[in-house]
Amino acid sequence: MAQPLKIALAGLGTVGVGVIRLVEANRALIERRAGRPIQITVVSARDRRKDRGIDLTPYAWEDDMVILGERADVDVVVEMVGGADGPALACSRTTIEAGKALVTANKAMIAHHGLELAAKAEDQRVALKFEAAVAGGIPVIKALREGAAANAIERVYGILNGTCNYILTVMEDTGRDFADVLAEAQALGYAEADPTFDIEGIDAAHKLSILAAIAFGTRVDFAGVVASGITRLRAADIAQAQALGYVIRLIGMAEAGADGLFQRVQPHLVPVDHPLAHVDGATNAVVAEGNFSGRLLFQGAGAGDGPTASAVVADLIDIARGELGPAFSMPVAELEALAPAATGHRQSRAYIRFMVADRPGVLAEITAALRDAGVSIESLIQKGRAADAGEVMVAMVSHEGPESAVTEALRLLDGAPCLTEPPLVLHILAD
Amino acid sequence: MAQPLKIALAGLGTVGVGVIRLVEANRALIERRAGRPIQITVVSARDRRKDRGIDLTPYAWEDDMVILGERADVDVVVEMVGGADGPALACSRTTIEAGKALVTANKAMIAHHGLELAAKAEDQRVALKFEAAVAGGIPVIKALREGAAANAIERVYGILNGTCNYILTVMEDTGRDFADVLAEAQALGYAEADPTFDIEGIDAAHKLSILAAIAFGTRVDFAGVVASGITRLRAADIAQAQALGYVIRLIGMAEAGADGLFQRVQPHLVPVDHPLAHVDGATNAVVAEGNFSGRLLFQGAGAGDGPTASAVVADLIDIARGELGPAFSMPVAELEALAPAATGHRQSRAYIRFMVADRPGVLAEITAALRDAGVSIESLIQKGRAADAGEVMVAMVSHEGPESAVTEALRLLDGAPCLTEPPLVLHILAD
Repeated sequence: MAQPLKIALAGLGTVGVGVIRLVEANRALIERRAGRPIQITVVSARDRRKDRGIDLTPYAWEDDMVILGERADVDVVVEMVGGADGPALACSRTTIEAGKALVTANKAMIAHHGLELAAKAEDQRVALKFEAAVAGGIPVIKALREGAAANAIERVYGILNGTCNYILTVMEDTGRDFADVLAEAQALGYAEADPTFDIEGIDAAHKLSILAAIAFGTRVDFAGVVASGITRLRAADIAQAQALGYVIRLIGMAEAGADGLFQRVQPHLVPVDHPLAHVDGATNAVVAEGNFSGRLLFQGAGAGDGPTASAVVADLIDIARGELGPAFSMPVAELEALAPAATGHRQSRAYIRFMVADRPGVLAEITAALRDAGVSIESLIQKGRAADAGEVMVAMVSHEGPESAVTEALRLLDGAPCLTEPPLVLHILAD
Repeated sequence: MAQPLKIALAGLGTVGVGVIRLVEANRALIERRAGRPIQITVVSARDRRKDRGIDLTPYAWEDDMVILGERADVDVVVEMVGGADGPALACSRTTIEAGKALVTANKAMIAHHGLELAAKAEDQRVALKFEAAVAGGIPVIKALREGAAANAIERVYGILNGTCNYILTVMEDTGRDFADVLAEAQALGYAEADPTFDIEGIDAAHKLSILAAIAFGTRVDFAGVVASGITRLRAADIAQAQALGYVIRLIGMAEAGADGLFQRVQPHLVPVDHPLAHVDGATNAVVAEGNFSGRLLFQGAGAGDGPTASAVVADLIDIARGELGPAFSMPVAELEALAPAATGHRQSRAYIRFMVADRPGVLAEITAALRDAGVSIESLIQKGRAADAGEVMVAMVSHEGPESAVTEALRLLDGAPCLTEPPLVLHILAD
């Protein structure tokens, strides 16, 4: 029998415990697929005494996770601590420097420090893998890095945050408002106590920057992602979108082209006949458009201990099999450095929503600004529902045109006394 | 610069030409991802003089594809000849016996001879890869073999034949009948001149037997697939299904359990809120349910030269990177031999459609047989539309019950003079 692959777990939250449960439950199967046993030898977490509902006595305990990679009984460290810096990064660096493989579920760390870690891993000729960092149990990193490797990927986009998708789905199904649904999601454990990273689109931006690098062969550029979240959406926006034949989904979208790397996280109007319109609840889905493969869609659970553990252990099986390819599908030195793309010339249709004072002449003022900026209106709805007294909602969908025209219209209206809050612009997902 | 991976192409149909185009178009990108150039050195096909719309002068020509693997300028043979036996199999055997890697798009050959070829490849320590054999450009073989490798897969199912899905979608959209739509699909090149393998479910059965082996770690058992096609479906069945909240899709489904390996290809009624209900046209989609990952869905173009070439070249990139893992995710000796599962005890809901003589008492005769067999009816519709004079259609959906009860009801009605053709039974896809 081949030597077991010896694993250290750094972090014993729900994902860490999920990995232990998976390795226990599927032990024989994993050994058949990996060609050798995968054996957890040592674990490390902040609090040794905490009851995690799982027997830790089979494993050695290490107080200092930063030195896990230096232990002789460790071939791979699985980092599940979280956070872009701090102990997670320290542990990851020392692991690779010690010549050991690193598997991580940490999207923030990979988005910020992935290139540094990947370069270190190449120097040390060890694997760095992070399937669990993007889209939970969906093997989308592998699908882009290997499955679609023959293609120039033209566009990659998807639903990358389960919390937002859950909230949007509930808002859609019940007509309730954002704050109300968020509070319920927190009570149910679907949203964190501090939900900022999720609802502001930062978590999706972390994932998008990783996907873009692998899809396009470009350097990770988290700072280049323009991200907005779902906090400004009203029940009335969702109702409006539905009336027009759309659902609203938080979409991360990336394109690489001659003018640079485009990366945006924003709620989009998704036509109801698009596959992403049927992605409900905490599900994630990623679409990659290759120049030979055409449109590929990958869908599944975007979070949770089981799906995340599934992705972590798939990486471990790859390592056990000797699969040590570059983390971002090609050596770091070959990744292109693309500047963020200007967006003004992008052609798109937009949903533009104004909250305005309910008095004569307001609509004329808005439509004049749109006309002056060259924005052509396809449909317009004025609604009073769900707004405060004296305030109405005016929503419209533009014909296809440059994004700069919409920006110019908003500039013309900036500070107009008739607006009771800044306008909301959402793009419409094009086929 | 690393040595190029030298490729021989056996077969220059649309897929072979697609591979040449892809390798030309994406040459630089492929080299960055593969770590070395992928270079087509020699090609072989039946007719050297045929105009394929592509310049073949850069490549050596070999008349006898069976000896391609023996040439010194070949590291990998890509078999795109087709057919379970004959030249494809001869070429594949000699390639592997010569110690060269084999990549194939040939689902029939892998379904019938995959285990033999995989065992030979293990003996020779060369790669055998067949991503293009299942679901065109969707990297579903890799997703199951590696991406979901940590999971016990409980069920794998999907839409595996683009021709059938195209025909069903057109029938659905237009209300036209099968024969009419098939003829049009043939004229448009979406269906072959001899469409038997597609419309009778054999092509889907080939693919299902391969997916099942990889998903469950079982020996390929094509003979154990119970397959029926779409030829008996009428426009009225599709209309009926729609009225009840379903679409009809040809689904290949496999499960492995204590009672053996269940493999069935059959048109199913798919609830409109299931992701597969939105898979239209020539698209393929595969669902795998893992015990930790939950439900994973992979969707994309199921055929065509571009998508198929994308899958072939992904395999070549894997080989160039040194990825030589077992063809069926574990060594052939470790694959379990499971007998075909008995189906009588399976619990399901069924759509049962009778074409009957339009005379009094027929409905009582049918419902009595169903009652006597213990089949409980959830809804029943009697329709005259789209049937010949004197003939009516009676369609019903049963409550959940054992499949054996439906079989027994059909036995009781076998040869009944009121039936103008044998009843049609379709299962309803359960969540």
